[in-house]
Amino acid sequence: MARPERSLYIGIDGGGSKTCCVVGDASGQVIHAGYGGATNVKSSSRAETEDVLLHLLEDTLARCGASMGNVRGLSLCLAGGHRPSDKAAMKQFMVPYFSPETRIDVQSDATAAWAAGTWGQPGIVLIAGTGSIAYGRLSPEGREERAGGWGYLLGDEGSGFELSRKALQAVLRHYDGRGPATVMTEAVLARLGLNQPEELIDWLYGHPAMRRELAALSDIVMDAAGNGDHVGETIVADAVGELTEQVRAVRKRLGDDNLPVITAGGLFSAPYFYSTFQSAWRQHVGKTGECRLLTLPPAVGAYYLALHGAGLASPTTGKTIENSLRE
Amino acid sequence: MARPERSLYIGIDGGGSKTCCVVGDASGQVIHAGYGGATNVKSSSRAETEDVLLHLLEDTLARCGASMGNVRGLSLCLAGGHRPSDKAAMKQFMVPYFSPETRIDVQSDATAAWAAGTWGQPGIVLIAGTGSIAYGRLSPEGREERAGGWGYLLGDEGSGFELSRKALQAVLRHYDGRGPATVMTEAVLARLGLNQPEELIDWLYGHPAMRRELAALSDIVMDAAGNGDHVGETIVADAVGELTEQVRAVRKRLGDDNLPVITAGGLFSAPYFYSTFQSAWRQHVGKTGECRLLTLPPAVGAYYLALHGAGLASPTTGKTIENSLRE
Repeated sequence: MARPERSLYIGIDGGGSKTCCVVGDASGQVIHAGYGGATNVKSSSRAETEDVLLHLLEDTLARCGASMGNVRGLSLCLAGGHRPSDKAAMKQFMVPYFSPETRIDVQSDATAAWAAGTWGQPGIVLIAGTGSIAYGRLSPEGREERAGGWGYLLGDEGSGFELSRKALQAVLRHYDGRGPATVMTEAVLARLGLNQPEELIDWLYGHPAMRRELAALSDIVMDAAGNGDHVGETIVADAVGELTEQVRAVRKRLGDDNLPVITAGGLFSAPYFYSTFQSAWRQHVGKTGECRLLTLPPAVGAYYLALHGAGLASPTTGKTIENSLRE
Repeated sequence: MARPERSLYIGIDGGGSKTCCVVGDASGQVIHAGYGGATNVKSSSRAETEDVLLHLLEDTLARCGASMGNVRGLSLCLAGGHRPSDKAAMKQFMVPYFSPETRIDVQSDATAAWAAGTWGQPGIVLIAGTGSIAYGRLSPEGREERAGGWGYLLGDEGSGFELSRKALQAVLRHYDGRGPATVMTEAVLARLGLNQPEELIDWLYGHPAMRRELAALSDIVMDAAGNGDHVGETIVADAVGELTEQVRAVRKRLGDDNLPVITAGGLFSAPYFYSTFQSAWRQHVGKTGECRLLTLPPAVGAYYLALHGAGLASPTTGKTIENSLRE
């Protein structure tokens, strides 16, 4: 069954809620994708992260009838993994599991989304999910710049977490008598099975997965805004304003005001949010440069980077990968 | 030494960082004040809170040459202790340690500050320390209303935590190239011994006492604002605006737009913050009603409530307590 002579390349996109592992061959044919738990090197312990990664790798390879020995290139793109010391530690952990000639590269998860959106060409990926960040790069080895993404307390402006946090704040403001009424009050209480806004406190602060649970309420904000709720509209308008600023800052720092922008992450999958962002983007930035939605999973970008690292990427590799996903 | 016939009354103000226990006699004479660790029923475990309270009570009474048997009234005002179920549980825990005739009452910590600021008369206390809340009451048994104080994620607008959080956000915005420069960048890095704004992330998210440590930076914001730093000025102006709204909401809900306002908590001890709030207050609310600073420790308000509960408070009790503190 096993074909030990086979050379495989792996891309991993590790996030705060799940991790995706894409296995393909040297020609850009994706063979299999597997999923595991969270691998955020900041919020999970290193041991947990390593454990998730090892099991996911072994399991995904086994499903391809292969093993660690078949892997020639591994591109690990992990949430929170942009610091040189974190990268070095993760690489050092991985090395003993693979053959000596295997190339192992560690990057941040934003790099995977960028590669899936640009296939290594200059561009900026704007990610708005639970968190948010604008990340731009000129080539896989070239300059990279970021704006935002400083986490739920200091950054993540325009993220699902921030959108929902502001929604609950608005609900409590109205409850206190210091803010206008909003349809979100009823919608939030109904979703969470609560009777009174006051109960939001116990629900939120006691929750072990607080950030994710909160961010999951962002569709309520978008529904409210889409139906003309003024409070919801203001929250969404502020969010797209923040995201626009993040992109502008990265474009400026990379010295190219025409870099294409690829939007990714859960918020942009809501048509209302995406179209509001597009309007704000056109208005603030003008018609310079492309702006489109990332439709591929970021892990295929990590797989592209593994091929690129091995000198196997060509201008048509991206197309080959995309076609192999459709098969 | 011990005088077992002596009747004592105790007020406790329990907060997120420390707890103060005031022991006095039936006439309003404060005998001793003791201090212990945090007793926030929301952020500490119940067992920890109970442990801190018991030790603090025993220790403070011992220093007065007394014991639990001398206590005739206990007013426990605890952070996060405004829910009926929390109050009942805490009271139930305390009962076995005292004699059957001892009156035990549990309230929120805001009630202690209110009582210290009003001696039981109608009024509103506006607290801005690590967190923030406006709390108003018409009498010790009368109606109470609050605004704000929903914790660091959903409320605490205008608090030290929020002031500092916005300052660090501004520092990172400038670092990203999406916000104006501010003198707070240098001041924050110097205070924390960091070289780059990026290092704020590891400092903050890894910190076990994150909220308190962050709030402790609020003097940097006030210094910046006081010296004309525009970013700092905006942050302080937003904070006093939020606090003004909290007071307005409570006045309105208590149905009296002339209720006196007493400001308390660490932020107001900064002259710049207090004077900025006074200006905003006069501008937004007009000249209706008194606004002054709480100069007594809130725990003496809790002690007043213990006397009041025993039917020992008179219109002059507040003055008696104040005078006994000066001796």
